[in-house]
Amino acid sequence: MFEAAELGRKVSSKDYKAQVPALREELLDVQGQLRDAGRSSVIVLFGGVDGAGKSESVNLLNEWMDPRWLVTRAYGSPSDEESERPEYWRFWRDLPARGRIGFFLSAWYSHPFLDRVQRRVRRAEFFARLENVIDFERALTDDGALILKFWMHLDRRSQKERLEKLHSDPLTRWRVTKEQWEHWKLYGRFIEAAEEVITRTSLANAPWMIVEGGDERYRSLTVATAIRDAIRKRLNGAPVNQSAGSALAVRGAKRRQPAAPKSRPSVRATKQTILSELDMSQRADEKHYKLELERLQGRLNLLHRKAQRRGISAILVFEGWDAAGKGGAIRRLTAAIDARDYQVIPIAAPTEEERAQHYLWRFWRHLARRGRVTIFDRSWYGRLLVERVEGFATEPEWMRASAEINQFEAQLVAHGIVLVKYWVHITKDEQLRRFRARQAAGYKRWKLTDEDWRNRNRWAEYELAVNDMIERTSTRQAPWTLVEANDKNFARLKVLDTACDRLAAQLE
Amino acid sequence: MFEAAELGRKVSSKDYKAQVPALREELLDVQGQLRDAGRSSVIVLFGGVDGAGKSESVNLLNEWMDPRWLVTRAYGSPSDEESERPEYWRFWRDLPARGRIGFFLSAWYSHPFLDRVQRRVRRAEFFARLENVIDFERALTDDGALILKFWMHLDRRSQKERLEKLHSDPLTRWRVTKEQWEHWKLYGRFIEAAEEVITRTSLANAPWMIVEGGDERYRSLTVATAIRDAIRKRLNGAPVNQSAGSALAVRGAKRRQPAAPKSRPSVRATKQTILSELDMSQRADEKHYKLELERLQGRLNLLHRKAQRRGISAILVFEGWDAAGKGGAIRRLTAAIDARDYQVIPIAAPTEEERAQHYLWRFWRHLARRGRVTIFDRSWYGRLLVERVEGFATEPEWMRASAEINQFEAQLVAHGIVLVKYWVHITKDEQLRRFRARQAAGYKRWKLTDEDWRNRNRWAEYELAVNDMIERTSTRQAPWTLVEANDKNFARLKVLDTACDRLAAQLE
Repeated sequence: MFEAAELGRKVSSKDYKAQVPALREELLDVQGQLRDAGRSSVIVLFGGVDGAGKSESVNLLNEWMDPRWLVTRAYGSPSDEESERPEYWRFWRDLPARGRIGFFLSAWYSHPFLDRVQRRVRRAEFFARLENVIDFERALTDDGALILKFWMHLDRRSQKERLEKLHSDPLTRWRVTKEQWEHWKLYGRFIEAAEEVITRTSLANAPWMIVEGGDERYRSLTVATAIRDAIRKRLNGAPVNQSAGSALAVRGAKRRQPAAPKSRPSVRATKQTILSELDMSQRADEKHYKLELERLQGRLNLLHRKAQRRGISAILVFEGWDAAGKGGAIRRLTAAIDARDYQVIPIAAPTEEERAQHYLWRFWRHLARRGRVTIFDRSWYGRLLVERVEGFATEPEWMRASAEINQFEAQLVAHGIVLVKYWVHITKDEQLRRFRARQAAGYKRWKLTDEDWRNRNRWAEYELAVNDMIERTSTRQAPWTLVEANDKNFARLKVLDTACDRLAAQLE
Repeated sequence: MFEAAELGRKVSSKDYKAQVPALREELLDVQGQLRDAGRSSVIVLFGGVDGAGKSESVNLLNEWMDPRWLVTRAYGSPSDEESERPEYWRFWRDLPARGRIGFFLSAWYSHPFLDRVQRRVRRAEFFARLENVIDFERALTDDGALILKFWMHLDRRSQKERLEKLHSDPLTRWRVTKEQWEHWKLYGRFIEAAEEVITRTSLANAPWMIVEGGDERYRSLTVATAIRDAIRKRLNGAPVNQSAGSALAVRGAKRRQPAAPKSRPSVRATKQTILSELDMSQRADEKHYKLELERLQGRLNLLHRKAQRRGISAILVFEGWDAAGKGGAIRRLTAAIDARDYQVIPIAAPTEEERAQHYLWRFWRHLARRGRVTIFDRSWYGRLLVERVEGFATEPEWMRASAEINQFEAQLVAHGIVLVKYWVHITKDEQLRRFRARQAAGYKRWKLTDEDWRNRNRWAEYELAVNDMIERTSTRQAPWTLVEANDKNFARLKVLDTACDRLAAQLE
C-alpha cells in the first residue's frame, strides 16, 4: 500500500516556482466558484505519519486560498464541554457550510487509530469504530459534501531524519514532542493500523489519497492540485460517489470516453511511479537459472503437497504488460505441480452469461476446493486496468472497485487461502523489441494483435493505473509482487521464489 | 420496531379474491418487462420468525410468476463443497442474472443472526459480520441490482399458535422441527437480535420491510404488491439507492412533488396502522388527574436531581398532530424541573445557516452538557414526517434518513443519554373539534394557521408516514411512546409517567 509513496519523489525549486503562481490562482478561482454555487461543502482531512507535513500543508493552503471561506480545525483531547457530549459532537459543530472548505487535522480518525496503535482496543472494537466513521462520512457525502482525505506518508528512516531535523533547529524544536518520538518507536504498528484504516475506509464516496511526504514542494503541489481538481470536477457536476442510478444510466453504452487524466483521483506532481523506480537491469544468467529453477520447482512441489494435506489453497494472480512473459512464468510454476491439483484460468472478455452478473461473479465461480492451486492469467484487476483505461468501466465503477476487490480478497484470506499477486513488468523499449521479434518469427506472430499495439499507445495511462492499483490494493495480507521481467529468467525465478515463500509462511 | 406488525391485520376472503387476479397479471407483466429490459437483477430476501410464512410466500410467488425466470434458493448447513470455499461463495453462485428474479430463504443473514441468538458470537463479532452483509449488498446494488428484504413477523403468542396448528395437522407436522420449538423458546433473544439486524442493515439501498405474518391473505398481498411496485418503479428508471448526484440535482428546487403513495417502500394491504389501533377512549378524570399530576411531578423532580448528580442527561422528543397538546404536556413536564436545568427547543423551518448544513447538524448543535434535560418540540423526525409528505425532502433523502437517525440516536444512547420519544396522538374528529374551538376563542386564534388546515388534508399520508417512522426508528434503546391524547389529562399523565420510568430505569 505504501510502496508507491516511498519513491523519493522530489520537485525542483525551479519547477515549483514555475507552477505555483498559476496553481494559486486556480485554487482561488475554484474556491470562489464553489462559494458562488453554494451547493457542496468541501471537507479536507489530513492524516498520516508525524512529520510528513500535515500541518505545513494546511498552513500553506490557508496562505494560498481566501481564508474568509476556510475553516481549519485540529483536535486534541476533548475539552470538558466536548467530553460531556457524544464523540462526534465537536466534528458536527465544526462542519463547513455549503460553499465553504474545511481543513481537518487529527479529526474523527485520530482516536480509533491511536487506540489501535497503542493496543487500547481489540480488533473488533476498532473496526466497529471505523464503521461509525463510514456512516458519518456517508451521511455527509449523501448530502452533497465533497470529502478529500490525504494520508501523508514517510518511511521509517525518513521520519526519523525529519524529526531529528526539526529537533535540531531551535525554531522548530517545540514541534517535536515526546509523544511523536513514542509514535516513531511504534512505526511498525502505526503503518499496520494505517493500512487497516485506509483499506476499510477508502470507499468510492470518500477515498484516501496517499501522498509521499518527504519533499515539501512535491507534497504541496500534489495536495493543492488534488484539491483544485476535485473541486473543479464537482463544480462540473460529477458526483464523487457512485449510485445505481449512474451505473444504470450508462449501461448499454458500449464504450465510454476514456477517463481524462485530469479526473484521476490519484495525483502526483512528478512522473515517477512505482514502476519507473524498479531496477530493470536485474538478470539471471543461464547457468544460475537452470540450477535455481530446478531447486525452486522442487521446493514448490514439496510445499504444495504439504499445503494440500493441510487443505490450504493458493490463488496466484498474474497481471502485466503484453509480452511481459506471464505465460512463460506460469508454465514454470505449473511444471512443479501435479496436473490434477491446479487450474489455469485465462481471463478474456466476459461471456454473455458473465456480463449479466456483477463483474466479480465470474471470479467467485472459479474458486476451487481446498488444497488446490488456481492461477488467474489476468484477473479481477482488469477492472482497475483495461476497463478503467479503455473506458469500459465508468469512473464510479472503477472507483468503487478497489474497495470491492479488497473486500473480496479479505474473504479469500480469511478463509485461509494464500493469495499471491504478480505484476510482471517490462520497459516500453523491451516491449517494442519483443513485439518486433514476434512479427519476425512467423510461429509467434499469432501472439501479436492490433490490440497489443493500441494498448502500447496508452502506456502512460496504464502506468498510472498500475500505480494506483498497487497503492489501493497492496495489503499486508495480499501484497503485490512486482516482477522485473526484462530478463525472462530472472522473472521466472522471482515468481517461483515468491510463491514458495508465501506458501511456506502460511504453513508455519 | 415490531409494534407496527402486531396489529392483527387481516384481509377477508372476498377482498383477497377480488384483488388476486389483477395482481397476478401485473406481476407477470412487470416480470416480463424486467426480463426484456435486462438491466437489473432482483433479489428478494425473506427473513423472520419461524411460522410467519416465509416459505409459503415464496411458494405462492413461484405459482403466480413465470418460474422460468425465477431462481429460488434456501440454505441449510453448508455442504462439503461449500464449506471448502469462503462463506459467500454459495450466495454469489446463486445470484440471478440481470433481468431475473431470485428468492432467497435463510441466506446471508441466517448465520450471523442465529449465532447471535444462540450467543455463539460476541456483539462486536456479530456487527462485524453484518458489515460483510452490508458490503455485499452494496456491491450488488451499486451494480444495479434491486434488493428487497422482507422480515416476516409474528408476536410470541401467535408464533406458538401457528406452530401448534402446523403440528396438529398430520399433513404439516413435518414442517415443525425441534429446532423451531427451540427458536420459539428463545423468542425474546430472537426479536432482540432481529431488531439489531434490521436497525443496522436497513439502509436506503436495501431496506427491510416488516410484514405482519399472522394472516396468510394479508401477507401474500403485501409481499406481492411490494414486489410489483418496486420492480415497476425500477423499470421507470428510479434508482432505489440514493446518491450525491441525485441529491445535488434536486437541491435548489423549492418543493418537489409529494411522494406518490404507490412509491412508498412500506406496504400494507389494509388500512390499519399502528395509530388506528390505539384505544383513544382512555381518559383521566379531573380529581385523579390532579392527584397524579402532583405525585408524578414530585417523582420526576427527585429523579431528575438524582440523574443530574450522576451526570445523566435526558432528551425528550415531542412529535404529534397539530393541536394534539404537545405544548401543554411539555409545560407539565418542565414545571417539575428547575428552570436552569432544562431547555425547550422549538423546531420550525431551518434558518439560513442551518439550511447550509446537513439536516442533522442543527440537532447536534443543541445537545446539552451532562445532567441537563433537553426537550425538542418537534425534531429531526420532521425529515420522515412533514418533509416526506410535503415533498421538501426527496425520496432518497427520507429513505436514508431512518438509518441516519438510528445512527444518530445510537450515539446519544451510547453516551448515556436517556432518549424518550413521544407521538402525541388525537383522532381526526378531535382535531377538528379543537380547530373550531380555537377559531371561536379569540385569544387562541393565533394558534391556528392555514397550514394546520393544509396538513389536515393530508391526514392519511401523515398516518402512513408515522406508521413507517415507528416501524423503522422504534428501537429497544430508543422506543417510541404513543400517547393517546383525545383526553389532555390522560396524555399529560402518560407523558410524565413515561419520562419517570425511563429515567428510573437508567438510574438503576
